[in-house]
Amino acid sequence: MSSLTYSQASTIVAEAFRHGESAGYKPLTVAVLDTGGHLVALGRADGSGFLRPDVAVAKAHGVIGLMMDSRAIAARAADSPEFFTSVAALAGGKVFSVPGGVFVCTSDGEVIGAAGASGDASTADEEAVVAGIEAAGLVARTGA
Amino acid sequence: MSSLTYSQASTIVAEAFRHGESAGYKPLTVAVLDTGGHLVALGRADGSGFLRPDVAVAKAHGVIGLMMDSRAIAARAADSPEFFTSVAALAGGKVFSVPGGVFVCTSDGEVIGAAGASGDASTADEEAVVAGIEAAGLVARTGA
Amino acid sequence: MSSLTYSQASTIVAEAFRHGESAGYKPLTVAVLDTGGHLVALGRADGSGFLRPDVAVAKAHGVIGLMMDSRAIAARAADSPEFFTSVAALAGGKVFSVPGGVFVCTSDGEVIGAAGASGDASTADEEAVVAGIEAAGLVARTGA
Amino acid sequence: MSSLTYSQASTIVAEAFRHGESAGYKPLTVAVLDTGGHLVALGRADGSGFLRPDVAVAKAHGVIGLMMDSRAIAARAADSPEFFTSVAALAGGKVFSVPGGVFVCTSDGEVIGAAGASGDASTADEEAVVAGIEAAGLVARTGA
Repeated sequence: MSSLTYSQASTIVAEAFRHGESAGYKPLTVAVLDTGGHLVALGRADGSGFLRPDVAVAKAHGVIGLMMDSRAIAARAADSPEFFTSVAALAGGKVFSVPGGVFVCTSDGEVIGAAGASGDASTADEEAVVAGIEAAGLVARTGA
Repeated sequence: MSSLTYSQASTIVAEAFRHGESAGYKPLTVAVLDTGGHLVALGRADGSGFLRPDVAVAKAHGVIGLMMDSRAIAARAADSPEFFTSVAALAGGKVFSVPGGVFVCTSDGEVIGAAGASGDASTADEEAVVAGIEAAGLVARTGA
Repeated sequence: MSSLTYSQASTIVAEAFRHGESAGYKPLTVAVLDTGGHLVALGRADGSGFLRPDVAVAKAHGVIGLMMDSRAIAARAADSPEFFTSVAALAGGKVFSVPGGVFVCTSDGEVIGAAGASGDASTADEEAVVAGIEAAGLVARTGA
Repeated sequence: MSSLTYSQASTIVAEAFRHGESAGYKPLTVAVLDTGGHLVALGRADGSGFLRPDVAVAKAHGVIGLMMDSRAIAARAADSPEFFTSVAALAGGKVFSVPGGVFVCTSDGEVIGAAGASGDASTADEEAVVAGIEAAGLVARTGA
């Protein structure tokens, strides 16, 4: 079993920011969690609102905590809104059904953590995270 | 009054796992609670996400705490979504309206606890729990 | 990096119980957590109070969450009671300064989780957990 | 009013880590908050326990939230332990009375945020944060 390092996590944050800036996204907050759902690195770009860290963490937390990508969570929530309501309450809100929480995997496909972004549209958030993960030499899994 | 023993509870977990594996389910987490809603045994299979213990506990907790099976909870939630919202908030999310929380009864029909599973589809979760309860020589009640 | 399996965790619970019974301890609750602080297996013996699961989890949680054994936590708490007060509040009480939370390590010394017990005196709780870990072919680290 | 930038915050984290490594400290977690008490950057070094982010955030949070440096908080806590207990409870534990939470100021002495570290002894945590703040071209205020 591999382990997500701080060096990889901080690269994901920096490169997701770089992607967002060059794509003209609004200021992002990016969080990278280990497989236990705990922060390894977080960055909030200038102008990104102060609730963004909680949202970025939550997007990654739900993905890694349920071991379901955001599309699978969205499908489950559509199928059973009350399931999602209960899970969100249980997790203190730390589950989202929109894109922006992405599995971080090794080249072998092993899950070593999850990253989340918040600040622009969900699909833009997701794109920035994916770019950050790939720039760190790792593999992103979104379910898309 | 009969009482759920640890031996019965750990058998439920082990046999629910065995059922899930032979049926090809995703990795499950199974929790068994006494009539006070407190854990007697819990197991999380390799690869089952870390939010699954909370969900498995919550499914059983709602059933035993409201003394309503999951179909009755679902019917009540359909009839009055606000009732479900308030109960879920009161219970900190520890109530679910989907299958997977099952009464554990003696052969006389006396309720001695509840078991819950999470990891695959709700009906699969429920089937695994029912199989575990029956393998422990007890009677499962789902409302189905 | 190695990973704690459910099979190892359930063996720790069963063998800690066996040790406690043969040593004449009061009924124990034993919890085994992964490195993220999340439950892998938990058992509560017949007659063990319903707050025991929370205590058993908390003992293991503090050890793995601070990456300090219980003696180191006790020394820190003696040195700075307010540090301990704040950490306990932050962690929602899931940190203890008494024995009973033990690192679970591979034979190489790699930490793969933590186990905690509650029910008898702290040193008895700890002995049972250590016995369980060793019976599972793993190495216990207590700081003693 | 000046404002703490992400660039400054991420430099504080990186340079606090560098200081800790060269001084042989245990793996640290470093958090940098703005004047609203919200995260701007956080890093958890490999091997730093998962409760460390909460502790690092809390150390900075108490300092900026009370607008008292950690020596002043410690003096107040010594003078009136009940004051500290109530504030710690109110803040959900996000106040510490030990060193490790440090004001981040401009060269004019204007407070633009606070940084906190956790992982080694409190004075070592504090030294690393001070080094990080100074390396970012800012001024640290500890009350020492």
